[in-house]
Amino acid sequence: MEIRSGDYVFLLSSDNKTFLVKVREEKVLGTHLGNVLLKDAIGKRYGEVIYSQRGEPFIILEPTLEDRMMKVKRLTQIIYPKDAAMILLKTGIHSGMRVIECASGSGALTIALASAVAPSGKVYTYDRREDFLENARKNVEEAGLSELVEFKLREAHEGFDESGVDVVVLDLPSPWEAIPSSARALRGGGRIASLSPTYNQVEKTVESLRENGFVYIETIEVLVRKILVRSGKTRPFERMVSHTGFLTFARKAVFDVKGLVGTV
Amino acid sequence: MEIRSGDYVFLLSSDNKTFLVKVREEKVLGTHLGNVLLKDAIGKRYGEVIYSQRGEPFIILEPTLEDRMMKVKRLTQIIYPKDAAMILLKTGIHSGMRVIECASGSGALTIALASAVAPSGKVYTYDRREDFLENARKNVEEAGLSELVEFKLREAHEGFDESGVDVVVLDLPSPWEAIPSSARALRGGGRIASLSPTYNQVEKTVESLRENGFVYIETIEVLVRKILVRSGKTRPFERMVSHTGFLTFARKAVFDVKGLVGTV
Amino acid sequence: MEIRSGDYVFLLSSDNKTFLVKVREEKVLGTHLGNVLLKDAIGKRYGEVIYSQRGEPFIILEPTLEDRMMKVKRLTQIIYPKDAAMILLKTGIHSGMRVIECASGSGALTIALASAVAPSGKVYTYDRREDFLENARKNVEEAGLSELVEFKLREAHEGFDESGVDVVVLDLPSPWEAIPSSARALRGGGRIASLSPTYNQVEKTVESLRENGFVYIETIEVLVRKILVRSGKTRPFERMVSHTGFLTFARKAVFDVKGLVGTV
Amino acid sequence: MEIRSGDYVFLLSSDNKTFLVKVREEKVLGTHLGNVLLKDAIGKRYGEVIYSQRGEPFIILEPTLEDRMMKVKRLTQIIYPKDAAMILLKTGIHSGMRVIECASGSGALTIALASAVAPSGKVYTYDRREDFLENARKNVEEAGLSELVEFKLREAHEGFDESGVDVVVLDLPSPWEAIPSSARALRGGGRIASLSPTYNQVEKTVESLRENGFVYIETIEVLVRKILVRSGKTRPFERMVSHTGFLTFARKAVFDVKGLVGTV
Repeated sequence: MEIRSGDYVFLLSSDNKTFLVKVREEKVLGTHLGNVLLKDAIGKRYGEVIYSQRGEPFIILEPTLEDRMMKVKRLTQIIYPKDAAMILLKTGIHSGMRVIECASGSGALTIALASAVAPSGKVYTYDRREDFLENARKNVEEAGLSELVEFKLREAHEGFDESGVDVVVLDLPSPWEAIPSSARALRGGGRIASLSPTYNQVEKTVESLRENGFVYIETIEVLVRKILVRSGKTRPFERMVSHTGFLTFARKAVFDVKGLVGTV
Repeated sequence: MEIRSGDYVFLLSSDNKTFLVKVREEKVLGTHLGNVLLKDAIGKRYGEVIYSQRGEPFIILEPTLEDRMMKVKRLTQIIYPKDAAMILLKTGIHSGMRVIECASGSGALTIALASAVAPSGKVYTYDRREDFLENARKNVEEAGLSELVEFKLREAHEGFDESGVDVVVLDLPSPWEAIPSSARALRGGGRIASLSPTYNQVEKTVESLRENGFVYIETIEVLVRKILVRSGKTRPFERMVSHTGFLTFARKAVFDVKGLVGTV
Repeated sequence: MEIRSGDYVFLLSSDNKTFLVKVREEKVLGTHLGNVLLKDAIGKRYGEVIYSQRGEPFIILEPTLEDRMMKVKRLTQIIYPKDAAMILLKTGIHSGMRVIECASGSGALTIALASAVAPSGKVYTYDRREDFLENARKNVEEAGLSELVEFKLREAHEGFDESGVDVVVLDLPSPWEAIPSSARALRGGGRIASLSPTYNQVEKTVESLRENGFVYIETIEVLVRKILVRSGKTRPFERMVSHTGFLTFARKAVFDVKGLVGTV
Repeated sequence: MEIRSGDYVFLLSSDNKTFLVKVREEKVLGTHLGNVLLKDAIGKRYGEVIYSQRGEPFIILEPTLEDRMMKVKRLTQIIYPKDAAMILLKTGIHSGMRVIECASGSGALTIALASAVAPSGKVYTYDRREDFLENARKNVEEAGLSELVEFKLREAHEGFDESGVDVVVLDLPSPWEAIPSSARALRGGGRIASLSPTYNQVEKTVESLRENGFVYIETIEVLVRKILVRSGKTRPFERMVSHTGFLTFARKAVFDVKGLVGTV
């Protein structure tokens, strides 16, 4: 598995900085530790080292899903990997599934969803802004996942084209506007996930889910605390990201559950 | 997609209790809300409802990966979904990969790993206790993932049979004993994840990772806080799981990085 | 400082259970480790040991403010010491101050406030329920702080008798109903603290504070995580109290700040 | 209570910046919103407003304990108010007590301790560095608390001069070196508090406490999460201080508790 021109590599410097870059014969990566000629990586394997023109080492790593998500070109705030990880697990997205995403944003979550449904599923991603959609399309393309994704220019409240999908993921300012159409698009037992920063959005979202036949509704937030591990002086880092958003999950029932399953 | 005998269903009661059960003509599920005849589910679709003999409704949901993990028969403490989700994301496990897991425990994480490498990858799972291995095997079988998993009876420090694997996941009391053999089993750029409850274990694990050519070492803990969402009175739940374990991640370099990449 | 009849002691058993009890010649304390004759404590000093009739040791400790708060007779949920500690610090309550508390609840916070203003200040504590007020009065009396506290039977929205007080502390279902009267009761620069479990209450409280001339408004929550310290296997406890309430603090300006200090 | 020359005021700007400053006829405070002539505050009351020469309003607030702590001149990292608040509560420090503090650092905690023991108690504060001690002395003096504090130049392991004190507070790199002398200085039932950033320090501290006759040992960490309250869009702040230190508390028994009270 030698690295060839056109492959992506994730370069790690000695001071733990990282660079996601496509290998090309003529390409030069400028870094704080000098220029790196990417042709030096051709023929090497992951885990090996190349050097900048100042003699500084860069380890050639293979980009993971998280690396790709974090390094997309951003026109919007992107979803954090911690939240994406929980969405993938809680919705039970897997190979072969059909998934709606709204909105596309910068495509970071689109990449995660496409990876999860590969090689045979499909992600339908909606955004109301053409510039965002175009940027997301490029980011998905660079991740080599274009065939798994359809991009659609549309307002969230205008509804979705698909039906019988397995999962809907909402990352919208007013997710409740898209919940009735999400309910129509989902198959029975299908899952929905919604990400919102404020308590107020969560309240309205959960109310709308209850009114639209969703059950097993759950809202959580995920906190990741980094630990500084040094022999004899280990402690949590002094600062952390305290809040990105609340995650709400639910599942679609195919009949009117009001009254019947009131406390769920 | 009608439900047939032999399918698994995830039943949800009106008071939010859940039951993961295999549908069989003759099977009766005893619950706190009366007996449920599982033949009633046959021919129904996910999202529909059946009733207990006391007339209580149970919604038929499709078991997700998380549901399967949480409902395995347990002989050991199992990994929490929040930690499994982060392991899947951070190691970048995907379809087609070859993964070593040690130890198997009750097989909850084995199920998550097997789902992630499906349909063409492989999970090699090691445990030193035959009873644990046998229980894990049954749990994996019930999840329909047996063909993706090889079970091996072995002490962690005795090493692994495989080489060139993509990912190693350690859940051991003394993970540092398995790190040299993990380094040998992994391909360049391959990822390792280790889960440990105490900071003392983390310190030794990170030391061993540094000594065995691993780079981009990171330790985190994942906290999930549940939110009680009720219109006009929304707040975090009063109690939470505060700690399950610290997660350490790293990647394999294929040369001696000591001295070269000291600060990574 | 020998212990005498009438003194309070805080007994600690060998399995870390604690008992707050008044020493009397004839008193017997029944425990899971046998009966303790309290006359045995008379003449001893804090830090010494007495034994139950089954020979189990109990160390005689001096009750701290926290011990007294946690051991009040409860007719209501009491404020957690973590929240009381932050209220004391943020409001800057000290010796000699005059403080309004509404509502009294079980008197746990009343005890903390009275201790802080001792020996020369005063706490005016209001509650609308006579049974709560009576119980709070007894708890304050047992803490030996009665002379520092006035108890008043009154609905929160009916206002307070005092003016020019230094601090107002609100622990009410609808704190915004008491904010106009709090503003009238406080001197310029005086502080207010309000405790509420839901974010909805916090929103209304902060709006009311802004409308009533308060500035430097801040809302926080305090989380305490316990660490299980054992040589070579130290880690956070597995469970924790995740939420008690949000704390809001502000200070009184003596003119109409609307328009003038909009962003404060 | 009009403000006079020599008083301290805590000025709040319209963009929520704060300034702790001593009022003097001739003093000018330079701010990002223009110069403020402090003579303008003379004769005003707390809660009133003065204006910068650019016409920007500054509300005159009364400095609280927290304000004083946060605004000390710093030669060292200072203790956070959240940790100071918990130390005051857990140790039960109150008016009239005698307290040892080691080390003095910048005197922020010294100010908190002195306020708590006022008007009749005493704080003995030790530091091994003359420059730190001198800076702490000035900070305590500016807070008007000098008469309550004795400053002593000494290494922590050399022991303390006092005996029969009520509380000892340690903020040292190697707190275990000062625990035997803390045990000698404390009266029976007296409390000790120790603040340390790393897990490793906590382990050694707790071991030493157990060996030196301390009981009721407890280690916690305090996390404060700020909430951004805006009508209709309330959420936690996006970043927080994740770690300052672990707090360990214990109480002094006056006999050898080893064997006797092993599990405490």
